[in-house]
Amino acid sequence: MNIVLLSGGSGKRLWPLSNDVRSKQFIKIFKTEENQYESMVQRVYRQIRAVNKDAIVTIATSRSQVSSIHNQLGDEVGICVEPCRRDTFPAIALVTAYLHDVKGVSEEEVVVVCPVDPYVQNEYFEALMKLEKLAETGDANLVLMGIEPTYPSEKYGYIIPHNKQDISQVETFREKPDAKTAQQYINQGALWNGGVFAYKLKYVLEKAHEWIDFTDYEDLYRKYEQLTKISFDYAVVEKETKIQVMRFMGEWKDLGTWNTLTETMEEPIVGKAMFNEDCENIHILNELDVPVLCMGLKDVVVCASEEGILVSDKEQSSYIKPFVDQLDQQVRFAEKSWGNFKVIDIEDESMTIKLTLNPGHGMNYHSHERRDEIWIVISGTGKAIVNDVERVVRPGDVIQMKAGCIHTIIAETELKVIEVQIGKDIDIHDKIKHNYKNR
Amino acid sequence: MNIVLLSGGSGKRLWPLSNDVRSKQFIKIFKTEENQYESMVQRVYRQIRAVNKDAIVTIATSRSQVSSIHNQLGDEVGICVEPCRRDTFPAIALVTAYLHDVKGVSEEEVVVVCPVDPYVQNEYFEALMKLEKLAETGDANLVLMGIEPTYPSEKYGYIIPHNKQDISQVETFREKPDAKTAQQYINQGALWNGGVFAYKLKYVLEKAHEWIDFTDYEDLYRKYEQLTKISFDYAVVEKETKIQVMRFMGEWKDLGTWNTLTETMEEPIVGKAMFNEDCENIHILNELDVPVLCMGLKDVVVCASEEGILVSDKEQSSYIKPFVDQLDQQVRFAEKSWGNFKVIDIEDESMTIKLTLNPGHGMNYHSHERRDEIWIVISGTGKAIVNDVERVVRPGDVIQMKAGCIHTIIAETELKVIEVQIGKDIDIHDKIKHNYKNR
Repeated sequence: MNIVLLSGGSGKRLWPLSNDVRSKQFIKIFKTEENQYESMVQRVYRQIRAVNKDAIVTIATSRSQVSSIHNQLGDEVGICVEPCRRDTFPAIALVTAYLHDVKGVSEEEVVVVCPVDPYVQNEYFEALMKLEKLAETGDANLVLMGIEPTYPSEKYGYIIPHNKQDISQVETFREKPDAKTAQQYINQGALWNGGVFAYKLKYVLEKAHEWIDFTDYEDLYRKYEQLTKISFDYAVVEKETKIQVMRFMGEWKDLGTWNTLTETMEEPIVGKAMFNEDCENIHILNELDVPVLCMGLKDVVVCASEEGILVSDKEQSSYIKPFVDQLDQQVRFAEKSWGNFKVIDIEDESMTIKLTLNPGHGMNYHSHERRDEIWIVISGTGKAIVNDVERVVRPGDVIQMKAGCIHTIIAETELKVIEVQIGKDIDIHDKIKHNYKNR
Repeated sequence: MNIVLLSGGSGKRLWPLSNDVRSKQFIKIFKTEENQYESMVQRVYRQIRAVNKDAIVTIATSRSQVSSIHNQLGDEVGICVEPCRRDTFPAIALVTAYLHDVKGVSEEEVVVVCPVDPYVQNEYFEALMKLEKLAETGDANLVLMGIEPTYPSEKYGYIIPHNKQDISQVETFREKPDAKTAQQYINQGALWNGGVFAYKLKYVLEKAHEWIDFTDYEDLYRKYEQLTKISFDYAVVEKETKIQVMRFMGEWKDLGTWNTLTETMEEPIVGKAMFNEDCENIHILNELDVPVLCMGLKDVVVCASEEGILVSDKEQSSYIKPFVDQLDQQVRFAEKSWGNFKVIDIEDESMTIKLTLNPGHGMNYHSHERRDEIWIVISGTGKAIVNDVERVVRPGDVIQMKAGCIHTIIAETELKVIEVQIGKDIDIHDKIKHNYKNR
């Protein structure tokens, strides 16, 4: 089974946990049976594995998410990187070409595409397997999964089926109607469009060649930036006549806002927090290492991270985006392929950061033009390379790097380092990558 | 005019701004005409100076507040330090002996004692001058100031005067009655006891000698730890028959809880914060350098500091103490005589701190037994002394100090330093003070 997970862009609707470099799907918010926390992408990946351990999972995403994906899912997961954002049709064409040309998936095989962030149970992924079968054996070119609506939502697109059977021809589509119209659609058997569909690889490959002049995956990748932005729905789905929908009656939640996200949380608290008994229907998510105390609040979500603090009535939490847009969005925390970093102090001409490197991982061999850096190892052991000279490092060691000096640090055990950057013009873009003989 | 300001102990009712080392009177929360923020103690000190620029102000306090007082009021202010806490009678005896024996204040001079944290206008301090005159010229041994009650509070003690005149003999005292009884007292002309009184120095000195066997200030200071805890009200006020009260009709607020404190704030926001128009009667105090966003809240106070985050219904904010008692109260921020420090990272075997030293100030010359330290200067210039060797320091300089090594740093301009402490047993009590030839 080939599953493509579409991992979308950065979101501000879950600020302060999501930001320009951390999309909501990477927030560790769901408690596992082992009392650990996992993110949406980790949860979905685990669920797929539980239902079909041999499924070949490919994540279609942008360059900015590659580090987080490797950090959370390991190095084994397939990733198809879009060179830039070009809407869903180019993205699906690219991943389809990738599966065919790079992964050697046959033209007759079925690909199931689904978003990376639905909150569902295993039954959902069992349904995806049925969808695969339908696409394999039926005569539809495209088989969609339609979500049985639970209320006349104005937020979703609707699939209008020919009849109310479990599997039906698709009559037409309707985008975000008002509640009254939505109710009429639902009475006729309409389903929410959850963005899930299955097709034989050759079908989308043909569509891609109809719209785009390219030879193979590499050629498409090269031309990607010049492609027109166009949605898969517009380019393919809405024009297709041999199209079916399969009705899905199980649990499905779209975790786009704090309001919906907190509904899926099993416990009211993640992180250090307390509340008194006069609190009612509150959720506290605290990523800081100091406590949050709530007294006498009702229907409120409190979220604290390195980026900021949100305190919101749950209903109103859907409307934070314009406010967050106004905030100075300096990235304070980010997951990298080698671990993570956290900004712990900012001054006019200095920035202090805590680096945590995972065992066996190291950062790129790099230099900066306009800042000096100093590392102080605070825990773990590893190896620093500065201007091609290697040295073993342990807690208390200090490494000083003037601007221009080429450096990296590689963890043996988990390695924590305080990095002090000093310069008049500290900028994340001031970074030059170099090759090192062993790397 | 001799004014003694009683600066009381640490409080948890204004957590997370007040903590074990920062009492509420040092929180910078009031906006001045110059658009700066000042603390309760700064406000009161400024008001006294405005009303009587020659007033001799002495702050009676504990050792732990000396650094904050010098930091906020400068080095000129008089401070009488209690060696330990022994309730108000020993404290007032000590400061009275201090004024007489150390400051040479005559036995016939009047001392006015008042708490350091009332929220009042200048008229209050004008009234204190009247109180002084009364104690000077009248025949009462003790003259109290009574606050005209604005409602039948159950929180305060009541002074029952002989009549409703502006100045009256005191009939008796009543401690914290229920609201109904309080209303009856008020109908009879009762006043709140705001803890303000004036006396001729010799009067309290005599009382002190009646209760305590001591010769002078130094002797009293030495014996202080053995003194019985006893309140001034019990030992003196309630037994005195020649006692008057002066009625004060002006504004007076006791800023003991978030609820009362926020009532005095001129603007709803201190620090980086935003709220949407659906918020009503909210206050946000944010000491962090990341923003707070509030949506759809009513009657709520949000306070964020290095110690933690409080989100509370204003009414319920009076009840936070038992919850705060349960929190791990690691001090994350403190004002020192030389500037301040802020803990920016804590790991099992390391702690990272940002030090800010005021120009011309330096810390004690000291060493640690069980931790190494590393300083990285991030801004400003100064001088470090390590094992009696002096060196000039500037941004980017690194100073490494092994356990046992004696060190200090002295600011020339404002000096900011990242300090990394490394050791298995990091503890604030692991500190040995030394003498340096020049210090």
